[in-house]
Amino acid sequence: MKPELRVALLGQGFMGKAHSNAYCQAGHFFDLPYRIRRTLLCGRDVASLAAMAERWGWEETSTDWRAAISRGDIDAVDIALPNYLHAPVAIAAAEAGKMVLCEKPLALTLEEARAMVRASRGVATMVWFNYRRVPAIAFTRQLIEAGRLGRIFHYDASYRQQWGADASRAATWRMDPAQAGSGVADDLMTHLLDTALFLNGPITETMAAARTFFPGRAVDDAVLALAQFGNGSVGTFEATRFGIGCKNRKTFEIHGSGGMLRFNLEKLNHLEFLDAANPSTEQGPSDLLVTDMAHPYFGKFWRPGHIIGYEHTFIAALATFLDCVARGEDFHPNFSDALAVHQVLDAMQTSAKTRQWTAVGCV
Amino acid sequence: MKPELRVALLGQGFMGKAHSNAYCQAGHFFDLPYRIRRTLLCGRDVASLAAMAERWGWEETSTDWRAAISRGDIDAVDIALPNYLHAPVAIAAAEAGKMVLCEKPLALTLEEARAMVRASRGVATMVWFNYRRVPAIAFTRQLIEAGRLGRIFHYDASYRQQWGADASRAATWRMDPAQAGSGVADDLMTHLLDTALFLNGPITETMAAARTFFPGRAVDDAVLALAQFGNGSVGTFEATRFGIGCKNRKTFEIHGSGGMLRFNLEKLNHLEFLDAANPSTEQGPSDLLVTDMAHPYFGKFWRPGHIIGYEHTFIAALATFLDCVARGEDFHPNFSDALAVHQVLDAMQTSAKTRQWTAVGCV
Amino acid sequence: MKPELRVALLGQGFMGKAHSNAYCQAGHFFDLPYRIRRTLLCGRDVASLAAMAERWGWEETSTDWRAAISRGDIDAVDIALPNYLHAPVAIAAAEAGKMVLCEKPLALTLEEARAMVRASRGVATMVWFNYRRVPAIAFTRQLIEAGRLGRIFHYDASYRQQWGADASRAATWRMDPAQAGSGVADDLMTHLLDTALFLNGPITETMAAARTFFPGRAVDDAVLALAQFGNGSVGTFEATRFGIGCKNRKTFEIHGSGGMLRFNLEKLNHLEFLDAANPSTEQGPSDLLVTDMAHPYFGKFWRPGHIIGYEHTFIAALATFLDCVARGEDFHPNFSDALAVHQVLDAMQTSAKTRQWTAVGCV
Amino acid sequence: MKPELRVALLGQGFMGKAHSNAYCQAGHFFDLPYRIRRTLLCGRDVASLAAMAERWGWEETSTDWRAAISRGDIDAVDIALPNYLHAPVAIAAAEAGKMVLCEKPLALTLEEARAMVRASRGVATMVWFNYRRVPAIAFTRQLIEAGRLGRIFHYDASYRQQWGADASRAATWRMDPAQAGSGVADDLMTHLLDTALFLNGPITETMAAARTFFPGRAVDDAVLALAQFGNGSVGTFEATRFGIGCKNRKTFEIHGSGGMLRFNLEKLNHLEFLDAANPSTEQGPSDLLVTDMAHPYFGKFWRPGHIIGYEHTFIAALATFLDCVARGEDFHPNFSDALAVHQVLDAMQTSAKTRQWTAVGCV
Repeated sequence: MKPELRVALLGQGFMGKAHSNAYCQAGHFFDLPYRIRRTLLCGRDVASLAAMAERWGWEETSTDWRAAISRGDIDAVDIALPNYLHAPVAIAAAEAGKMVLCEKPLALTLEEARAMVRASRGVATMVWFNYRRVPAIAFTRQLIEAGRLGRIFHYDASYRQQWGADASRAATWRMDPAQAGSGVADDLMTHLLDTALFLNGPITETMAAARTFFPGRAVDDAVLALAQFGNGSVGTFEATRFGIGCKNRKTFEIHGSGGMLRFNLEKLNHLEFLDAANPSTEQGPSDLLVTDMAHPYFGKFWRPGHIIGYEHTFIAALATFLDCVARGEDFHPNFSDALAVHQVLDAMQTSAKTRQWTAVGCV
Repeated sequence: MKPELRVALLGQGFMGKAHSNAYCQAGHFFDLPYRIRRTLLCGRDVASLAAMAERWGWEETSTDWRAAISRGDIDAVDIALPNYLHAPVAIAAAEAGKMVLCEKPLALTLEEARAMVRASRGVATMVWFNYRRVPAIAFTRQLIEAGRLGRIFHYDASYRQQWGADASRAATWRMDPAQAGSGVADDLMTHLLDTALFLNGPITETMAAARTFFPGRAVDDAVLALAQFGNGSVGTFEATRFGIGCKNRKTFEIHGSGGMLRFNLEKLNHLEFLDAANPSTEQGPSDLLVTDMAHPYFGKFWRPGHIIGYEHTFIAALATFLDCVARGEDFHPNFSDALAVHQVLDAMQTSAKTRQWTAVGCV
Repeated sequence: MKPELRVALLGQGFMGKAHSNAYCQAGHFFDLPYRIRRTLLCGRDVASLAAMAERWGWEETSTDWRAAISRGDIDAVDIALPNYLHAPVAIAAAEAGKMVLCEKPLALTLEEARAMVRASRGVATMVWFNYRRVPAIAFTRQLIEAGRLGRIFHYDASYRQQWGADASRAATWRMDPAQAGSGVADDLMTHLLDTALFLNGPITETMAAARTFFPGRAVDDAVLALAQFGNGSVGTFEATRFGIGCKNRKTFEIHGSGGMLRFNLEKLNHLEFLDAANPSTEQGPSDLLVTDMAHPYFGKFWRPGHIIGYEHTFIAALATFLDCVARGEDFHPNFSDALAVHQVLDAMQTSAKTRQWTAVGCV
Repeated sequence: MKPELRVALLGQGFMGKAHSNAYCQAGHFFDLPYRIRRTLLCGRDVASLAAMAERWGWEETSTDWRAAISRGDIDAVDIALPNYLHAPVAIAAAEAGKMVLCEKPLALTLEEARAMVRASRGVATMVWFNYRRVPAIAFTRQLIEAGRLGRIFHYDASYRQQWGADASRAATWRMDPAQAGSGVADDLMTHLLDTALFLNGPITETMAAARTFFPGRAVDDAVLALAQFGNGSVGTFEATRFGIGCKNRKTFEIHGSGGMLRFNLEKLNHLEFLDAANPSTEQGPSDLLVTDMAHPYFGKFWRPGHIIGYEHTFIAALATFLDCVARGEDFHPNFSDALAVHQVLDAMQTSAKTRQWTAVGCV
């Protein structure tokens, strides 16, 4: 009989839904080492909390996140709250000995992130940089690790959404720096950076610019940056909420002596791969449908050509985390990995203010 | 308090998994009129049946499908068995007053299909032509119904898979005519036909050819056909398991006086639409990412650009069926709609044998 | 000093322009064995003939095509006239000992085509199936000949244009069966067939249907067909002027045990190639930009990535023809090759009338 | 009778070929105000000069570029020489009263460029930024000028080639700073900048980085930059010869309140346009095949769907220049326009050295 893992989920918004789904689904596709119990759902909107709990099978509800932490029958605390709550909740949970799962960005500031890492030394942590579990991205990492791209020259990345121009969304917490920290920097650039560090290693120095297109808005609408990687490659980064025409277009494009890799999140099941080892007449980007049974994660879901979607990245992330916990191995990305993201982000934000190239600091 | 709907699922293969997932997930995304209970799972492989039931939350198991039908505490029987069992099980279930959900193809023969329609007159039926619930396909229908394509001239469709050349799959029931009826005709052409009838209306006459590429194989590897539609348009159809390079490539391409529509199942979230009402300098196929909150079904799942996958078509099909049942409305595609598919398929198979144009008969 | 080749071009329409351009340009990119002289331009529209001659550097003009044939100082007669004139002019030219270049389709009827082959036995002939000189198509042939596609299972082709619905073009000779022979059959299907025979070998039997969508029109708007190839593969063919949304979309898609090849004339510089010899995780259609110096013909023009267009296929066809003539080798496609196209076309047209599978006859 | 225009072409390399072709072809497709005479071809490689002159119909040859300038029977001097010769030759030609056509980059330095503008005040000038004549790019400008993109937020551009890693090309003048000025900065970034200024207006400030990946190489292999435009938009620029997998991939992507435009030179006949004025369910990038008779330049060449290539941009540039000269109107891009490119380039190069944001100076 597998041991139980009793989870408290904090948050009832879009991410609360995505996480709830992962808790329901992970055991359907993966052989989990635990029986997940959806023990407690915390949120502040009483009106909708019970309905959400019923829909997703949460056993109890609470409007006080501290309840989750003080209870002895909770093993894991999952934080899907507005950004400003990540640090205090995560620290309290870690200090209470819970394993902690936290939405990105890890924190509002680099200082907070450091404190979270310190506080969580003794517990298992994970950060929901779910895109590492896109089969195409995990496969990209395999190809790079196998040396298929040779020496990397360029790593370019962009994340374009278009809702910045939508006035109806002006009142969300994402537009309030006190709650969100920043605009696209914390929201989208962190995703770009986690993927970049995962695929291409550390960034040593960066030059960035931030722009707010709408008058009166308190957070950044776009952040652009140049970056120097430790492996000698250079890159451009662009995160924007004014990429009109792009619904959720997160891309990377990598050029190395061995070939090219291109990805676009709106085509999540696809990866373009050019192998420079082929004869010159046969070199062109191959549109791989990353749905082979031998591709990372995919074989757990369906069959070749039967595509998966956004939610499956959360499912695979959770299953992998639990597997690491059971084996006593470090999961990645954990709080330390997310701290590395914040170090680059902090350098970018500093650079945007000082207009200077800025070195990425050490922990 | 919503009424319960007690389901017995017959089948523990790939489709059993897809249906199980739909029963788990439908209530998470849709406001269902029933509380689904996964009461009984039937299958013949005792070794794996209990594990599957545990994984997907089926309360009980049985190795005898008749058990499901004779029990008074089952409201709906879902048939995910090899093709040759569809007719006897569905007829027995309908005669026992159960609502019946049946995988495609409906039957082995046109005669069987007719008998199934007759037997099920008094009960709600649905056939798992799940692709009608692909948002892009449902949206295609909306565009056509709104007259956006004008008079249709051409409707071309193909379904290409590649596993026909894979000797390791020679022993599946799909390669046995006694169990499967035929090869791609029943397996893939039925999908093409259901979509075609849904989008472009009745086919009146057809000319087809079937081919078996591998010596000794008892079923068809490829079926090709020309078709005349009742609305005056003409079409080509191709279903094959020797479309090397295609994992699950189901396509249609429609040309009408008002424009063009193109779809490829491997890019399930996409639809190409050319609107001939635009100025000639601005006419080109638009690559629509069919993930807008106003697109059919999509708004129930995630947000724009956060794509869905194969399994969501089953979820949406089930939710729509239950909604129709609760409202007392006819669901489509039901057994009668699937009978219409078999009428065309039967004409194609007759044509392939007689080498003659063959009219599609009436019920 | 290279010998002169004195050319008479018959025709001043769109094809007259394309051929004139080829005569001007061939020597710029290819090392021709002859110095081409643009000796005589024949056409019936006196008003524009002189201007066209001046523009393209034709030394003399005439309104009588017989003039070109009776003159002793003409070595080659190039026929870019309406279809009904191809046979009489080509036969007269061949009988006068000229080398003969003829636009497609070769003839109005199979009988005419046979007579043209007989009459031209002693002279060099070429037919302007220019698409054989698309680098991507020539490269496709190389890949197939090298065995890269293995055993071919499917060869599917389409040619879609959209101007059939344009009433302003109703009065052209292409809509008059006496001048054009047929509609898309002669105009577009011949292109599909020449490419198919070039790439996949003889067609042995076919089943076709023709449609005229506009009332009162005397020629076919669309022809669809199934085809059996001599190598065991099967195919679908579709030629239409009602492919709304398609400007000049000529495609083929070939599936064999070794992989897949896909082409679309609107992306003339591209070829999609899937090599089934790759590991399954790395199989996807490669979008080859067929502009490598080692690709057929391309190296004569520009550098990798500096694309060529429609007109370059005429230039390469002419240069290749002249090279063959100088070497005393047979050029392909010559009149005999075009006769083979007409044999299949005739079988398709017979099939469309008799509604029967029709064998492709021998010469 | 049209007046003659007697041209001297200086340069016998790849650009000499492209320009020669333009002189031959412009009159075939455009109604030119002049009869072009290919009077003199200058180059230093005597061995191949005569053959090139014969091939392209140049009447005379010389190995001394000063000959072209001193002759009274030359009206226009076209400079297709290595970069370091642009300034001295252009100044001498302008002072001799010739009209001057000059390959890009205009000059080695900003100072040189200024001197060239001063020296050429009285004569007609053009710079071969041929890509302004790509129909898709000219159409992009029309769409923007018509307000279809609304307020521009982002303008991103890249130019990726891959031959930097090819050791066999190390000895070309392009790798010698004395002859080329720089590496990709002069070669590729100038193209990006001319297009950017043409489409999106002045750049006011930039931050750039240059990289040389190969040890011992004296010129830059890659230049990356952030840019602030005068209209409030921001952009990223990347020019590289280490974009492995890219043959000649010059792109731009523009996002404005009215929609999106995307272009890739390897698909020269295509333009992606998303019109945000469409209903949200119908918004997707339209793949426009920019071959309509009403698209810029295209109607002069062939018919819809009959694509053009690289060389046609030179033909259209030349024809447009001659038309402006005959009308007494300013042609763009002329030397002043190219000076504006050099002002931005100079700021980028300064920035790459000083690691500071650098304002773009005034003339």
